[in-house]
Amino acid sequence: MRRICVDMDEVMADTLAEHLRRYNQTFDENVTPHDLAGKGLWEITPPGRQQQLRDFLDAEDFFENLALMPGAQKVLKDLSARFEIFIATQAMAVPNSLGPKYRWLQRHFPFIPPTHYVFCGNKSILRADYLIDDQPKNLLCFAGQGLLYTAPHNLAVTGFVRVNNWQEVGEYFAPIHD
Amino acid sequence: MRRICVDMDEVMADTLAEHLRRYNQTFDENVTPHDLAGKGLWEITPPGRQQQLRDFLDAEDFFENLALMPGAQKVLKDLSARFEIFIATQAMAVPNSLGPKYRWLQRHFPFIPPTHYVFCGNKSILRADYLIDDQPKNLLCFAGQGLLYTAPHNLAVTGFVRVNNWQEVGEYFAPIHD
Repeated sequence: MRRICVDMDEVMADTLAEHLRRYNQTFDENVTPHDLAGKGLWEITPPGRQQQLRDFLDAEDFFENLALMPGAQKVLKDLSARFEIFIATQAMAVPNSLGPKYRWLQRHFPFIPPTHYVFCGNKSILRADYLIDDQPKNLLCFAGQGLLYTAPHNLAVTGFVRVNNWQEVGEYFAPIHD
Repeated sequence: MRRICVDMDEVMADTLAEHLRRYNQTFDENVTPHDLAGKGLWEITPPGRQQQLRDFLDAEDFFENLALMPGAQKVLKDLSARFEIFIATQAMAVPNSLGPKYRWLQRHFPFIPPTHYVFCGNKSILRADYLIDDQPKNLLCFAGQGLLYTAPHNLAVTGFVRVNNWQEVGEYFAPIHD
């Protein structure tokens, strides 16, 4: 059975939406994902607000209630019948996210056992056939086939196999069998 | 640079000592590691105490202050100059251990960056050249060279390269260079 590793933030969970919600609420702004085409939120944030941007992530409840990316549950449920699915998330930069991420996965993806969660930093550690991730740097150090999941910050990135949404993930794997 | 994955419990941290301490204190017993030759603590615990044995691990503070295995710091510090060191620990069966394990590693092994922590379940996910682990089942599913770190429960196990302590780990890797 081939193995697919799936990133959480901005692939399974709409982390950006929560980050923008807190940003806009705190600074009385109205930044949208559209404003971030080709850029991370960090890049459009003035220096005086950078610390607050980081503090949002460190809040105990930031990762507890993230919205699901549309189609993630259904497509992963389907894929889990034919592939071995591991969740691989960069949790170590935000240690407060460890517990909330665990609980979020259990709540929304009960068909993936906790034995298949990987909370890591450097994704070169993953031994898998595929990695679906929104961060080009994670795909570059991954030894298997990478799939770049489209997010506002990576819109201008080229050189990767790209999937724009979960429907496209399903279509990519449809013809792949052991 | 070759890569070594190192298990935490009973390899870097004396988890058994803390488990025995709580067991003996709670049940007014005097079980020692010597009594466990070839067996896990689970195996010598009467059915009526199994739930409590599990509850010890779930306590918020169980993993906060585990004693270091002798020599682990020095040998890993030395090895980190020549090898890429990742910590790979089965944290997912005890989600309350996630935060404490992170803090314990930062406190005792500051020379290993959090990007190189891997909190996982199934260790077949690790892409590395070596894995040092006390659990035969983890070594069996690992794709690289396994080293069985001696613990009371694995004394009777054969068929693995065995290291009895951190000095022997250092000796094993002494002649290995890229």
